[in-house]
Amino acid sequence: MTNQVQLLGISNAIVDILAHVDDDFLNEVGAPRGSMTLIDEQRAHEIYDKMGPATEMSGGSVANTIAGFANLGGSAAYIGRVSADQLGEIFVHDMRALGVDVRTSPAANGLPTARCHVLISEDGQRTMQTYLGACTELSTADITEQTVGTPKVVLLEGYIWDIPEGPALAKRAMQIARQNNLTVALSLSDSYCVERHQSAFFEAVKDGVDIVFADEDEIIALLKKQSFDEVLPALSDFDNLFVLTRSQQGSVIVQNDNTIYQEAIKVDKVVDTTGAGDAYTAAFLYGWTADQPLAECARLGTWCATQVIQQLGGRVEKDILYDYRKA
Amino acid sequence: MTNQVQLLGISNAIVDILAHVDDDFLNEVGAPRGSMTLIDEQRAHEIYDKMGPATEMSGGSVANTIAGFANLGGSAAYIGRVSADQLGEIFVHDMRALGVDVRTSPAANGLPTARCHVLISEDGQRTMQTYLGACTELSTADITEQTVGTPKVVLLEGYIWDIPEGPALAKRAMQIARQNNLTVALSLSDSYCVERHQSAFFEAVKDGVDIVFADEDEIIALLKKQSFDEVLPALSDFDNLFVLTRSQQGSVIVQNDNTIYQEAIKVDKVVDTTGAGDAYTAAFLYGWTADQPLAECARLGTWCATQVIQQLGGRVEKDILYDYRKA
Repeated sequence: MTNQVQLLGISNAIVDILAHVDDDFLNEVGAPRGSMTLIDEQRAHEIYDKMGPATEMSGGSVANTIAGFANLGGSAAYIGRVSADQLGEIFVHDMRALGVDVRTSPAANGLPTARCHVLISEDGQRTMQTYLGACTELSTADITEQTVGTPKVVLLEGYIWDIPEGPALAKRAMQIARQNNLTVALSLSDSYCVERHQSAFFEAVKDGVDIVFADEDEIIALLKKQSFDEVLPALSDFDNLFVLTRSQQGSVIVQNDNTIYQEAIKVDKVVDTTGAGDAYTAAFLYGWTADQPLAECARLGTWCATQVIQQLGGRVEKDILYDYRKA
Repeated sequence: MTNQVQLLGISNAIVDILAHVDDDFLNEVGAPRGSMTLIDEQRAHEIYDKMGPATEMSGGSVANTIAGFANLGGSAAYIGRVSADQLGEIFVHDMRALGVDVRTSPAANGLPTARCHVLISEDGQRTMQTYLGACTELSTADITEQTVGTPKVVLLEGYIWDIPEGPALAKRAMQIARQNNLTVALSLSDSYCVERHQSAFFEAVKDGVDIVFADEDEIIALLKKQSFDEVLPALSDFDNLFVLTRSQQGSVIVQNDNTIYQEAIKVDKVVDTTGAGDAYTAAFLYGWTADQPLAECARLGTWCATQVIQQLGGRVEKDILYDYRKA
């Protein structure tokens, strides 16, 4: 019997290797500032060899969201593939330690657990070089009535479309969700990812996805627009709930003709932008699954994103909701 | 040909697993606050299963010192055993990334790389539960004229006496040092470690060790005194250079009838005391190998220790010497 949870995440299960770099380093390894690049194992070794001393933490976009959601007090489950190696053990531990029901067993054979080299610039901007490893072995067989269960929300990430069976397993998850009347949310990951899979994402948003989480660049790429100004008018063609984050310009929540603007919170020093969007999504969904008004969901999301950019890594450890209630 | 370096460290090579805990957790797992306990693999799994989400970073006492020394710009080498697993790869990477000449190859077989569960309390105090794993396989065969070379200082840690061949390999290192007229330094690790090996440490300090790094509890345990007040008069019987750190009460440098007092630097918020002593030792030796006066070595040590307690983990990443010169 599958545990009943509010939120299920399906995503690439990744351990982050975080280190500070300067722009010379980014130039040397040919990594565009702020980008996420998929790399093979040999390139992963090359990058790592060049990097300074690092810190390791569990990461992954929707995996961060699931961890954040559980940390806020929500009940969550997770589907994502790691190998039965030390990094895989770390990833699964960090999920289970938050009470997350991990529904995919570490693979005894195959590729090693995925790692993302997170190169953090002085201003907190993060550039990512990701080796997907064991993630690429996630398959449609992992997505069943049993493993999906009946959560209130099934959350997918755009990056899932980057793995061989990703499009098929995402479709399977959406089918199971529809049969059981579950809400499907999609986090668009990054604008390059949207460009790689624009038509698949567009089709999913038109049919299967209920809530879309995106930043400016991602929603512009999805709708093939030139600027964010063209985005808002175009959204009236959709029935989805759009949650659009705009960094210092706050966020905008749009559903049909209902539009809510949420201001950003000013921060003295951005340490590391890793996980800002993921934390926003976690807290937004925490509010949403607790039937909070959209404006309150947006406030919660903003609060959590603000916490995560003031620390190293993509997951907030402390009791942020306690601080939120105090504030 | 062995690279010529200023400082060689011989110690337990450990990856830290850091997480915040409350006192209830320490009681539940039976870990005395502030202690370091050696645990077996089964116990390591039990502790880890109970811990919250964690961060992983290279650690180990003298290993931290070696990393700190290299980070300050000193040339350093390192002897310590890891396994050829992912944590071992992380440990060696973090050393090499600082330019440290790692002179022990990861073991293809045997026990996994050591890990230390660092349980951090709200006030920054750290309690450690250490599984030594591959460290226990370091042997006298690893200590040769070739691997030791002719550094200015050979730095040992008390913890080395906890591994099966530790006493023998420490003796071997001291013999090679004497033959080549090298300075031997010993960091006493912790007071329980001193109690475990008091007579061996006392004998080494009387014959073989030139510089002793200790905190209050460690030097009290070494000299079998009741309080620190009894320590200073007793040191006149020794020819060693004693570097004694006293937390908020600063540090005291003693050699024969020369005594230097160095005040502590006030800190608003202690984040994590992990590595304070190690950082002090690194910077002190950085000054010492550069022929700085003892008072300047103590100032440098104090500065670096102050940096490391204001962050998570036992190693400072940024250019602390630059900040020191500015201050």
